Amino acid sequence: MTAVVLDGPQLLGHLDELSTCGRTTGGGVTRLAWSEEDVAARTMVTGWLGGTSVHPRLDPAGNLIAELPGRQAGLAPLAIGSHLDTVVDGGRLDGAYGTVAAFEIVAALAARGERLRHPLRAVAWANEEGVTAPPFTGSRAAAGMPVDLDAVGPDGRPLCERIAQAGGDPAGFAGAAWDSLAGYLELHIEQGPVLDRLALPIGVVTGITGARWGWVRFEGQTNHAGTTPMHLRADALVAAAHAVLAIERLATDGPARVATSGVIEAHPGNANVVAGRSAVSFDVRSMDEAALDAAVSRLASEVDRIAALTGTTAALATVSSAAAVPTHPVLRSAVSEACASLGQASTELASGAGHDAQHLARLGPMGMIFVPSIGGISHHPAERTNPEHLIAGAHVLLAAVRLADERLDH
Amino acid sequence: MTAVVLDGPQLLGHLDELSTCGRTTGGGVTRLAWSEEDVAARTMVTGWLGGTSVHPRLDPAGNLIAELPGRQAGLAPLAIGSHLDTVVDGGRLDGAYGTVAAFEIVAALAARGERLRHPLRAVAWANEEGVTAPPFTGSRAAAGMPVDLDAVGPDGRPLCERIAQAGGDPAGFAGAAWDSLAGYLELHIEQGPVLDRLALPIGVVTGITGARWGWVRFEGQTNHAGTTPMHLRADALVAAAHAVLAIERLATDGPARVATSGVIEAHPGNANVVAGRSAVSFDVRSMDEAALDAAVSRLASEVDRIAALTGTTAALATVSSAAAVPTHPVLRSAVSEACASLGQASTELASGAGHDAQHLARLGPMGMIFVPSIGGISHHPAERTNPEHLIAGAHVLLAAVRLADERLDH
Repeated sequence: MTAVVLDGPQLLGHLDELSTCGRTTGGGVTRLAWSEEDVAARTMVTGWLGGTSVHPRLDPAGNLIAELPGRQAGLAPLAIGSHLDTVVDGGRLDGAYGTVAAFEIVAALAARGERLRHPLRAVAWANEEGVTAPPFTGSRAAAGMPVDLDAVGPDGRPLCERIAQAGGDPAGFAGAAWDSLAGYLELHIEQGPVLDRLALPIGVVTGITGARWGWVRFEGQTNHAGTTPMHLRADALVAAAHAVLAIERLATDGPARVATSGVIEAHPGNANVVAGRSAVSFDVRSMDEAALDAAVSRLASEVDRIAALTGTTAALATVSSAAAVPTHPVLRSAVSEACASLGQASTELASGAGHDAQHLARLGPMGMIFVPSIGGISHHPAERTNPEHLIAGAHVLLAAVRLADERLDH
Repeated sequence: MTAVVLDGPQLLGHLDELSTCGRTTGGGVTRLAWSEEDVAARTMVTGWLGGTSVHPRLDPAGNLIAELPGRQAGLAPLAIGSHLDTVVDGGRLDGAYGTVAAFEIVAALAARGERLRHPLRAVAWANEEGVTAPPFTGSRAAAGMPVDLDAVGPDGRPLCERIAQAGGDPAGFAGAAWDSLAGYLELHIEQGPVLDRLALPIGVVTGITGARWGWVRFEGQTNHAGTTPMHLRADALVAAAHAVLAIERLATDGPARVATSGVIEAHPGNANVVAGRSAVSFDVRSMDEAALDAAVSRLASEVDRIAALTGTTAALATVSSAAAVPTHPVLRSAVSEACASLGQASTELASGAGHDAQHLARLGPMGMIFVPSIGGISHHPAERTNPEHLIAGAHVLLAAVRLADERLDH
């Protein structure tokens, strides 16, 4: 094993620097995909490689890619990276951390004149968050998946215009697809409380959770709250309340790993009016596809029961779904062994959130490394990770990349 | 008992005519208090008394009052009436019906040269609905209750300006207070489903329900829906759902007559985020003040239990309350006997909604008469009552007024 080459304080300094691109008054970051702030962040990252032989390029989707050539001919690239864009008033680590670490690794290797067997590609993926266009644009493009370039954002502008303005090439978008991939490793903050609660610095990710998203809607009868006897009501908000609890039970007493209702609507929404219409969102997640199907099917039965109980009519619609994506055993072992070799305690855990990595898995072996999120907080200005854990995570990534470089064949 | 003097078809015709003041495209009526449409409606009602000896006047609050002198000196007036203003896109009967019937009665008696013992005062109360200013302005003014003339409406205009523009006199507002009242009878649509379900034409109102209105609020922890294990959540929307069901139980399995949650809010309100903050409105009604207090106190205990269950912190606040106002036994009997004498079947019921009558009760005996609302629908363009029931209600009002005139002393 080669000695450590990463400069921890420089990693933290670059993270600080990056957080100035889009910093909000409350200490958060708003750096929407392809915005001026996002372009400024890419320029900043590019600058960090200024003194090296590696010159980052922007692909047609707006992904920033820095590739260190490999020493063995004919091998597909090993890729590492994450995203630079944020949600509105998000944190300074989500995406930025894994991106900075990836470019630091390429820069450090380049600065030492060191090469791996495989070409090593550091990537800042475009639009992971999906605030102004459907999420994962950059990683979907690399994976050759369809992207609707005419998708219109909240400001009425189409995706292609956004990409062009940020230096991408919508007309040549298909050119963003990658031919081959030896393996992909992504370092990311957990965005959940598991590692923090367990006081462990590293999580070896077993996979990216599958999910089903949708709505339950109830139609009752709008009525006067003072004049309508209880037995003559068809209260859509009472039905919605039952549904929220039924959704929770899909995980607390059912097949799902987690189940959440985050949105509720009741119309007309007056304190003195019995609601005639309501809607409740559901978000159900599991690493097991059969469990997801069972959960949604159980919810459908519960909703029928609730409708009968409340005198409402109900409809359940699954709007979108994500298949569970396991990480590759070779990369999982590489991460575990890297932890062991560096004396970092770790545990295996599933990623509850989606990541660019799930799309790269279509091209080749995929793995992920988590570091703790203090208090589990993410997508918030208070998103924090212990600086020692940030440095440890980058070291683990580098060590895992070296192991993967040895073990992955093509 | 004197023979009936009301012209039913004329009553229905006048209701039709009145509905043109503020008619909306969907067949509803928008006639906000003191608006041009409201002024036009008062002019129309005034016109109906054109050929009689009674000349309606506008009081300083904008109440339209038509008084037929009594034949016995020294008696306080008997008053009948309702309001002419509506909610936005409301129905054509709420308020208008009782107002038209009251003015028809005064006009019919005047046209025949008939006088009661008491002066008979028909009133169209100003601003019962409270769309642009706090409700019940006219009846509160008559009852000598405080009215904030500087209250600003959604358009930024103060109440005093609205009143002045509609021909009232804000500077002389105190002059709207009545010195004395022998009794007050209000005819109104039920705005609920009870009479319609029972297929009864007349409701003898036992009183106007008391109410408590307020909010239950929960603070939990905003978290990622995919990454936060169920046991580490403090889900404010789950807490709110429990609260909605607890509020319902205050009536279905508790001391309240009806209990409703009509508004629910969950923040941040994203499908993939565990809500960190929520609020639920409560509206609890009963004719029994002790039952209302017991209901709110039980809700407070339930909310504490829910907070403990969900790991949230909770607060309950009663924002406003209305005391239950029973109708006067003499007027209740007068209405019942009037029904019997006219062969109209009736039942006693509480008014679940507030009415101008509740304020007049401060000055003297108060009674109310309901006619059915088809399907219980009100505050909606589809607000309807069988025309035969509308005519029957007006006849019952007149017959009850005659009985009250004989029985009420001062």
